[in-house]
Amino acid sequence: MVAHETRLRVRYVETDQMGVVHHAAYLVWMELARVEFCRAAGFDYREIELQGGVMLAVVETHCRHLAPARFDDEVKVKVWIQSASPRLVCFGYEMRRAEDDRLLATGDTKHVFCNREMRPVKLPQKYRRLFGIKA
Amino acid sequence: MVAHETRLRVRYVETDQMGVVHHAAYLVWMELARVEFCRAAGFDYREIELQGGVMLAVVETHCRHLAPARFDDEVKVKVWIQSASPRLVCFGYEMRRAEDDRLLATGDTKHVFCNREMRPVKLPQKYRRLFGIKA
Amino acid sequence: MVAHETRLRVRYVETDQMGVVHHAAYLVWMELARVEFCRAAGFDYREIELQGGVMLAVVETHCRHLAPARFDDEVKVKVWIQSASPRLVCFGYEMRRAEDDRLLATGDTKHVFCNREMRPVKLPQKYRRLFGIKA
Amino acid sequence: MVAHETRLRVRYVETDQMGVVHHAAYLVWMELARVEFCRAAGFDYREIELQGGVMLAVVETHCRHLAPARFDDEVKVKVWIQSASPRLVCFGYEMRRAEDDRLLATGDTKHVFCNREMRPVKLPQKYRRLFGIKA
Repeated sequence: MVAHETRLRVRYVETDQMGVVHHAAYLVWMELARVEFCRAAGFDYREIELQGGVMLAVVETHCRHLAPARFDDEVKVKVWIQSASPRLVCFGYEMRRAEDDRLLATGDTKHVFCNREMRPVKLPQKYRRLFGIKA
Repeated sequence: MVAHETRLRVRYVETDQMGVVHHAAYLVWMELARVEFCRAAGFDYREIELQGGVMLAVVETHCRHLAPARFDDEVKVKVWIQSASPRLVCFGYEMRRAEDDRLLATGDTKHVFCNREMRPVKLPQKYRRLFGIKA
Repeated sequence: MVAHETRLRVRYVETDQMGVVHHAAYLVWMELARVEFCRAAGFDYREIELQGGVMLAVVETHCRHLAPARFDDEVKVKVWIQSASPRLVCFGYEMRRAEDDRLLATGDTKHVFCNREMRPVKLPQKYRRLFGIKA
Repeated sequence: MVAHETRLRVRYVETDQMGVVHHAAYLVWMELARVEFCRAAGFDYREIELQGGVMLAVVETHCRHLAPARFDDEVKVKVWIQSASPRLVCFGYEMRRAEDDRLLATGDTKHVFCNREMRPVKLPQKYRRLFGIKA
């Protein structure tokens, strides 16, 4: 699957006293874009966690901030898979203000597949195609 | 047990673009004061949840805001049990700025004891004394 | 204006280790429903704050929890004005799971109009109609 | 100034349904460690922002997760300056569980000094020594 785009509206609570969005909010936006990416790819993130017993534990996050997002801005989050194996997957992100397409931030996150006890596992075959992993 | 006091320092992320602490943060402060209240009463909230399999599900929250807290303020949260039965417990709270004892907010929360499946249960006998519940 | 309905999708970060949505998230949902209520009423909350210099400071919040929301649930937040005067406004809320219309929570919040220095002010005439306040 | 260590207690709200601390919380912990670092260095972060009119805007964050933190864990956050100039400063972080010194995460953040309008500025002379910047 290629890149997927999600839109969100900046929440008041996401701002801080600098008058702009707090940097931790961008990690949350990347997360919800991942969930929508999975939904668009035809699989339910909640399902893989509940039925499949497989979770995507975050092992690395990286975010570069180029321009501040502000309260009530509409933001487009583009997400794509940078690389994937049965053990780990890396996502890339680009966040833009919808109004003028201004690039706000870029980011990437690395995840390992793990079970409910937080032990690393190999992604079950049936989910591999969704991440573009060759069986 | 009588009232217990916990101190915390306002975090930057807890402010919003109004330049003061966002109102949702006060619910978080009440929560951490409850945890410290339990610890001071000689029992570990984590233990009751993990070993006892009993959780305090929040069923009602109420908060009145009298003066705004600001970034880096030291805040005192006083918490006490308003009423308790084997089925539910109510906590009262008072939040003051440490520097000048200014009353910032008051609140109360109501909780039901429930199991891991979120079904209401009676609090096991061994924990009742901690909440001042007569066996 | 009558009641307005906003929809949102539960974020992963909004859950806690109880496996359900943390109670503080509901205050955030009420807030974003207020913003959408204002937008639907034909005025921009950001505009009133930036151009009008008027802010809606939260002075009281109340929330009753009837059933837990879970990750990825779609939630409908209904919001309406309970009462309004040039000095303060009260909103009521009802939150339901979209899938089965199950009532999750009800709430209400009270706000005073204030200026950038957090001093109470009367709402300027031009905004009063939006809150259903007779001039 | 050399490394500074801050201690914090994991909040319930910081956990997610995976049963561990959500990854965005680590950015918040790094932030509060920076504030305490500044306080220990003899200057008040709030003062530099309010009186000095200088803010440390975050331009990059990076975090590697090695082991999960859990509710009620005591966490030690070590923070130090990696590099600093009148225009930008980089902090390094190490987060450990206090109980057994287990390394939970490492991170780094890059900041530019800017004014209230979010424009980059040079750090005023009087604050440079605090960041180990030669005048």
